[in-house]
Amino acid sequence: MWKGRDYEYYYFGSEAGSMVLLREVTDDDIELVMAWRSNPLVYQGFYYQKEPLTWEEHYKWWHSQYKQSNWKRWIIQVSDDVTTRDVGCVHFRQLDNRSPKVSIFIGEVTLWGKGISRQALSLALDWLEEQGYEKVHTTILGDNQRSIRLFESLGFKNSGDAREGEWTYELYLKDRRRQDND
Amino acid sequence: MWKGRDYEYYYFGSEAGSMVLLREVTDDDIELVMAWRSNPLVYQGFYYQKEPLTWEEHYKWWHSQYKQSNWKRWIIQVSDDVTTRDVGCVHFRQLDNRSPKVSIFIGEVTLWGKGISRQALSLALDWLEEQGYEKVHTTILGDNQRSIRLFESLGFKNSGDAREGEWTYELYLKDRRRQDND
Repeated sequence: MWKGRDYEYYYFGSEAGSMVLLREVTDDDIELVMAWRSNPLVYQGFYYQKEPLTWEEHYKWWHSQYKQSNWKRWIIQVSDDVTTRDVGCVHFRQLDNRSPKVSIFIGEVTLWGKGISRQALSLALDWLEEQGYEKVHTTILGDNQRSIRLFESLGFKNSGDAREGEWTYELYLKDRRRQDND
Repeated sequence: MWKGRDYEYYYFGSEAGSMVLLREVTDDDIELVMAWRSNPLVYQGFYYQKEPLTWEEHYKWWHSQYKQSNWKRWIIQVSDDVTTRDVGCVHFRQLDNRSPKVSIFIGEVTLWGKGISRQALSLALDWLEEQGYEKVHTTILGDNQRSIRLFESLGFKNSGDAREGEWTYELYLKDRRRQDND
């Protein structure tokens, strides 16, 4: 269950003794998001991108798409005893549809495999459910096994082709597999 | 000539109609610098790094080395008609020596080849000269032709081996090749 207001941090315990938090994206994040999106290890999972971004591409995307009112955008943070730091992005788009689209990436690539994206995605889906949505979808490159495992672990099911080489995964939020005992 | 106080921006015209600026690093930059240092296209030029950083490595380096009092650290910014954005790092270390060591990288990799690092390095050397230093050095991997060309274009000369596979380049600041008419 989504416990905070949109501008507040939302805490969530993780097994490693650290916490995963979501905070809203601001314009001050534009260089950090650009740096993550320009890392080949990150953008190899993107459908539309084959090389590092130019500033013009990133700036145009930020202002003409990412900041549209039918998007909801968070920076994923990890908090431990010492620091709270930004590690990636999760967002919904198509919030004017009955089934919005969710996307996520962890920009701090050495954090992969530690369950951070699963927790962040779970928090984001909490929010979506609280807003009254019943369904959500995403698209994943067919060779992105890491991402397929992530979404399937939360109950997403393959519902067919998307763009070339890409699959659509859907979830009815009532069918969600939860990891916690909320 | 260094025209600003340390905490002020320093403007410098570039051919592309944009400006290159240096601003001092703050702790708020820690994730952005980590993101740049974790991009394989960037760290392939580093002597000590063969894979993306962990937070623990970066955090330790930041607080035990990067913030030492004998370092001077700037974020390189590019300013155009629309935005001013962070694009990379330049710093001196060993400022308690007669010949400090300078290092630079452009994290926004699609900016490479546009003369940004040459301008940023030139600004940093202006500062060093104003402080009364007469000499500066750097070390460069022997296969990093891009970096070798950059430093040689400002007058740095190969002065022998550094660590394995790495060369030392030195410059007497009075021998500096300037690109501007200051």
